[in-house]
Amino acid sequence: MTHITPDTSPAWQGGHKGTLETGRDLLADVSLPAAVIHEAPLAHNLTWMQDFARRHRAELAPHGKTTMTPALFRRQLEAGAWGITLATLPQCRAAFAEGATRLLLANQLVGHANMAIAVELVRAGAELYVTVDGHANVAELGEVFAAAGLALPVLIEVGVDGGRCGCRRDEDVMALARDIAARPGLMLAGLEGYEGVVHGDDPEAGIRAYAERLVAGVRRIAQEGLFGVEAPIVTASGSAWYDLIAEAFRDGGLEGRFTPVLRPGCYVVHDHGIYREAQRGVLSRRPDLHEGLRPALEVYAQVQSLPEPGLAIVALGKRDIGVDQLPEPLARYREGGSVAEPLSVDGWRVTKLMDQHAFIALPEGAGDVRVGDVRVGDIIAFGASHPCLTFDKWRRIHLVDERLNVIDTWATYF
Amino acid sequence: MTHITPDTSPAWQGGHKGTLETGRDLLADVSLPAAVIHEAPLAHNLTWMQDFARRHRAELAPHGKTTMTPALFRRQLEAGAWGITLATLPQCRAAFAEGATRLLLANQLVGHANMAIAVELVRAGAELYVTVDGHANVAELGEVFAAAGLALPVLIEVGVDGGRCGCRRDEDVMALARDIAARPGLMLAGLEGYEGVVHGDDPEAGIRAYAERLVAGVRRIAQEGLFGVEAPIVTASGSAWYDLIAEAFRDGGLEGRFTPVLRPGCYVVHDHGIYREAQRGVLSRRPDLHEGLRPALEVYAQVQSLPEPGLAIVALGKRDIGVDQLPEPLARYREGGSVAEPLSVDGWRVTKLMDQHAFIALPEGAGDVRVGDVRVGDIIAFGASHPCLTFDKWRRIHLVDERLNVIDTWATYF
Repeated sequence: MTHITPDTSPAWQGGHKGTLETGRDLLADVSLPAAVIHEAPLAHNLTWMQDFARRHRAELAPHGKTTMTPALFRRQLEAGAWGITLATLPQCRAAFAEGATRLLLANQLVGHANMAIAVELVRAGAELYVTVDGHANVAELGEVFAAAGLALPVLIEVGVDGGRCGCRRDEDVMALARDIAARPGLMLAGLEGYEGVVHGDDPEAGIRAYAERLVAGVRRIAQEGLFGVEAPIVTASGSAWYDLIAEAFRDGGLEGRFTPVLRPGCYVVHDHGIYREAQRGVLSRRPDLHEGLRPALEVYAQVQSLPEPGLAIVALGKRDIGVDQLPEPLARYREGGSVAEPLSVDGWRVTKLMDQHAFIALPEGAGDVRVGDVRVGDIIAFGASHPCLTFDKWRRIHLVDERLNVIDTWATYF
Repeated sequence: MTHITPDTSPAWQGGHKGTLETGRDLLADVSLPAAVIHEAPLAHNLTWMQDFARRHRAELAPHGKTTMTPALFRRQLEAGAWGITLATLPQCRAAFAEGATRLLLANQLVGHANMAIAVELVRAGAELYVTVDGHANVAELGEVFAAAGLALPVLIEVGVDGGRCGCRRDEDVMALARDIAARPGLMLAGLEGYEGVVHGDDPEAGIRAYAERLVAGVRRIAQEGLFGVEAPIVTASGSAWYDLIAEAFRDGGLEGRFTPVLRPGCYVVHDHGIYREAQRGVLSRRPDLHEGLRPALEVYAQVQSLPEPGLAIVALGKRDIGVDQLPEPLARYREGGSVAEPLSVDGWRVTKLMDQHAFIALPEGAGDVRVGDVRVGDIIAFGASHPCLTFDKWRRIHLVDERLNVIDTWATYF
């Protein structure tokens, strides 16, 4: 019996799910299902958001938790990003190991083991910022970093009633700022917020007010001389309301004194669901932008069974694609065929997703599909909503050109 | 600056999410969130299901797609399993690379690249069975394997109207059996089904009838002399209705002539949701079993913020745990404390899960929790429904003993 290892034998082409297939044709010789990023819209999005931030005089620290794909972090940094935002210490460790040195943990740092990772990262040269929102956590962090002979830059999270983390009241922010300023193990480095948890009858007004609260907050803290860094950070924004945050920062008179930082993550590949919808809002508020982001992430999978008229079972499941919404069939190709000869998916509709299977209702009137146009082996491109929950299904993602040839295969680090 | 790699430096303890922490105390020095398997219920479940199959004179081929954890495949094989069931060719490749040699692909094998993996696996010594349900796929598989000078053992999938894959009518099964028997690249090796897609007013009766249809099917094919193997396989069963399948196989007079195979996957760690509920059905139908499976999989995470009375934000999200149902808080411990001193989670309820955060409504009457019993850093054990969709969130899973010390850390291969 031949000894086979999962990763090293050339015959097995790398990972277990998705393989290293550089130079191969996605329609002919790549194991499917596979997650795919299209180079052209990716390049567009990288430039688009960097330009958007620049024109609003803000820095960009894309949220890396979306993709956890260091090759994308490199593309974002090459495009001009100021740093990479992350959600956990293991994510920070992975990003740093792959070359990202300025890391913004947009989350509270809790747990002894996670604090130990943070200490090691800082000692290794990382410029790591973390978020705090309570005195107990501040005290513990202060002790850990003072004992390590370090001073950790922290951002106070500003929250809203009924929201997620963050100090609810401005007096709490100020009290925490004074607490931090008095601790040798910490440096107060700015304010952090996430407008995605602001709700209410008029979310747009609520988000503008929230962004203005962040701006007023850093001014107040600066007036009191509590910051421990030059040009303290004020940061917010996901990929849905970034225009409102950017405008409030631009108009906040921060220039030269503060560092406004935007943190969208999903923008880099956009989506076919909630962010497509959110972009309609951005473009309606900002007609000057005229062209927006483009969806770049798809999952390709094959018809595996045509068991009864009107029904196709596709080898694509909850293991392969985000399920916040049911995936959308975007295109179909014959296996071994050409991207120039797409087949119809008009009227195709995913009705159910199991762990490893998608049920597709085929359009009525197509007759008996078993002898018709649809074949077992046909390759379907699917779009999804919320790219974060598609990326985390994959250890390898293929970058493809317009002919669906694989340009590169990128590792993810979830 | 120190060079850090994500996996090799001892300081970083292995993977990015979950770390190699053997010998460590989960409550003191393991990076959380982390997925955890408890050894005692795991050992119980391994023995329990193997005994169940044996007493029904069936073989066990646990569905490996549930866990994709080769260390668990080894435990299942050591307990007496006949083989490992899988859902995709990359999964088969991973299982074979880690030592599982008899592989049952309970799915159609589609795609040139996947067929190439199958050819390589068979050449390397794998005893690989795959499922078929249509003539076009049979023709393609037959050509590929004949060209490789091999004969692939295939199982015909038997389906139901409105179900998933599989031949809907018995005459289709027979026609496909004759087709396969005539192809030198294939060997007809049995019938396969999945009762989880049988619906109707009386699912119990429907599933019994379905199992009897499988038994009648292999008899009919054997009578016609179409099988290409000794002791052809008849196989079905997930982790919800396995008792009905096992009884029909046991009572089907298969002994000595056929190989009945059960394929539950989730049983190995059971759950705190749909399978706990399903087990009530099994135990009510089979009072002789008196003791059932025990939940063994949990995810541990820490309170990261207590931003307002009655609300705890926990560092646990859709990235960390299955979301078919909201996770259930099972236990709470003080960080650095003892498993012998659990704190209350009575009345704790997860109300919302985001990518990286869980919202917990704390019980009313607890007063201002910010100064009360709950602290930032408290460690919560969560149970989930449907273990398949928790396993696939992790690259490393900790095996722990009753004191919550890490016995081993297992890699997953999704």
